[in-house]
Amino acid sequence: MHKVIFDTDPGVDDAMALLFLHRHPEIDILGVTTVFGNVPLDLTTRNAQFLHREWGISAPISKGADKTIDPSRTDDRAASVVHGADGLGNIGVPQLIDWPLDSRPAHQFIIETVRANPGEITLIAVGRMTNLALALRADPEIAHLVKEVIVMGGAFDVGGNVTPAAEANIYGDPEAADILFTAPWKVTIVGLDVTMKTIMSADYLAHMVKSGESSLQLLSDLSQYYIDFYRSRAGLAGMAVHDSTACVYLVRPDLFTLRTGPVRVVSGGIADGATIQAPDSGRKFIGTPWDGHPSQSVCTFVQSDAVLEVIRAALVEGRPAIAV
Amino acid sequence: MHKVIFDTDPGVDDAMALLFLHRHPEIDILGVTTVFGNVPLDLTTRNAQFLHREWGISAPISKGADKTIDPSRTDDRAASVVHGADGLGNIGVPQLIDWPLDSRPAHQFIIETVRANPGEITLIAVGRMTNLALALRADPEIAHLVKEVIVMGGAFDVGGNVTPAAEANIYGDPEAADILFTAPWKVTIVGLDVTMKTIMSADYLAHMVKSGESSLQLLSDLSQYYIDFYRSRAGLAGMAVHDSTACVYLVRPDLFTLRTGPVRVVSGGIADGATIQAPDSGRKFIGTPWDGHPSQSVCTFVQSDAVLEVIRAALVEGRPAIAV
Repeated sequence: MHKVIFDTDPGVDDAMALLFLHRHPEIDILGVTTVFGNVPLDLTTRNAQFLHREWGISAPISKGADKTIDPSRTDDRAASVVHGADGLGNIGVPQLIDWPLDSRPAHQFIIETVRANPGEITLIAVGRMTNLALALRADPEIAHLVKEVIVMGGAFDVGGNVTPAAEANIYGDPEAADILFTAPWKVTIVGLDVTMKTIMSADYLAHMVKSGESSLQLLSDLSQYYIDFYRSRAGLAGMAVHDSTACVYLVRPDLFTLRTGPVRVVSGGIADGATIQAPDSGRKFIGTPWDGHPSQSVCTFVQSDAVLEVIRAALVEGRPAIAV
Repeated sequence: MHKVIFDTDPGVDDAMALLFLHRHPEIDILGVTTVFGNVPLDLTTRNAQFLHREWGISAPISKGADKTIDPSRTDDRAASVVHGADGLGNIGVPQLIDWPLDSRPAHQFIIETVRANPGEITLIAVGRMTNLALALRADPEIAHLVKEVIVMGGAFDVGGNVTPAAEANIYGDPEAADILFTAPWKVTIVGLDVTMKTIMSADYLAHMVKSGESSLQLLSDLSQYYIDFYRSRAGLAGMAVHDSTACVYLVRPDLFTLRTGPVRVVSGGIADGATIQAPDSGRKFIGTPWDGHPSQSVCTFVQSDAVLEVIRAALVEGRPAIAV
């Protein structure tokens, strides 16, 4: 059983990832922490409450950061053009949802839950990395108590999706991401190199809805705006399931090819938010800002059809995928 | 006949590229302009004089810039670890070579030669781009009078070779490269994406020397230090023929795959000197520093065996390659 804290900013593809974690029989969600990002914090938190209520998810929800870790950044860089003004494809989520919130701020929830389960928890972060950076800052020792950190974010051997250089989750809080990547814990980064190759077509989603239970109708409804965005702005015949791909890594790391080496994040300038790895296997550099930082894993290749089947099997049948 | 001005900082692979341009029957070298880079300007200029004398190259040599276009940069970032302290593999080049220099500085030589041959000249820049940026600054109209600019430099979908982010020619003068890439002329960029895939083995070079004329013995002698560098530091079984690959593009563009879109260079920070393209065919971004700049061509794929044969045919037999 994989014990997980899911750090998220729902967000359309966040919603699919949450349902995946909930439905997969080998995953135990210990908590959901919210962060500003795709839309402002009040909306991402409200959306988490809404999805928990609709899908009967009992894990506690803890509300997190509403701004970047560096207070001098003032541009909030929200992505409502991708996810709709409400963050869930403009399906008409009620303004207030009567669903409990944990009393602790997200970073405190993370610290206490990690300390209560030493060596057992995987943190999956699919939004800006602010909550995790705040947790590290408040209690650096948790780096040694977490099993693994899986991040959806970054663009290494491919271009960005917010600027030609940067991916949205990193661009939204570059300093937080740099804190996370340079901490002494095991990080695996699932970025655009693989998520932009993991495209779920509208037909594939429709087929899942037809064969699955009613929870999937909501998922389909809230995804249509996002699919339209990818069709019109990125020329894709479907949607990139960024966050679900990161969650699939938890249960099926064998479907991914990794490259190890320290990772840093550019702060400021035209490449603000770009992620750059110094591969362990490449040329040896001396005296660069990558020196002395821990080697982390970056996904460079994915068996995308198999990832889609892992998602489908969990969402539709509530089981691990067979024979992929 | 391709009329060429070759802007260079010899440099081991510069030497091979110079001999390639000289021996190829469809190329007419109108001038060689020197720039600081692999080693300081006095040495790159002396090396150009030495190679002209040894190989009987009659094209004028014009001495260029000895520092970056932005005077606030003080780190010269020379690459003598790659090319030897003398820039030609420590073969013992005489300190002074009795060979004429053009009286004009390189940027003035470029301007006047371009104006004397409107629409006919290809500039091939295989060092820092300072001379070309100075020429553009002094006479912006030359952008409309040059046929094409071919640059060896940059790293787009791959890591750098001086830092994890940056390639040496760009890192050596990032502001000059940005001026060059954003000017309204046709630029084709031959970067590490293709040059690190175009590796000439020591055996291949030795075979050329055995079958060719005596000029190749010098080329082989000065290349050994460089081959040793690539073996020990980059784990390659041969040398990347960066500059010759850019020259092959002149006569055989069909061997390369191009991607078009504006290109900018990062200035400062951990990604100083990184090159980033906003592909025309990719996601549409609005309000980024790439907006409004001309689309340039970046080489993303190369038929490297064919490129090596084009080099061999010119160096050994003084003719274009057949059937590649």
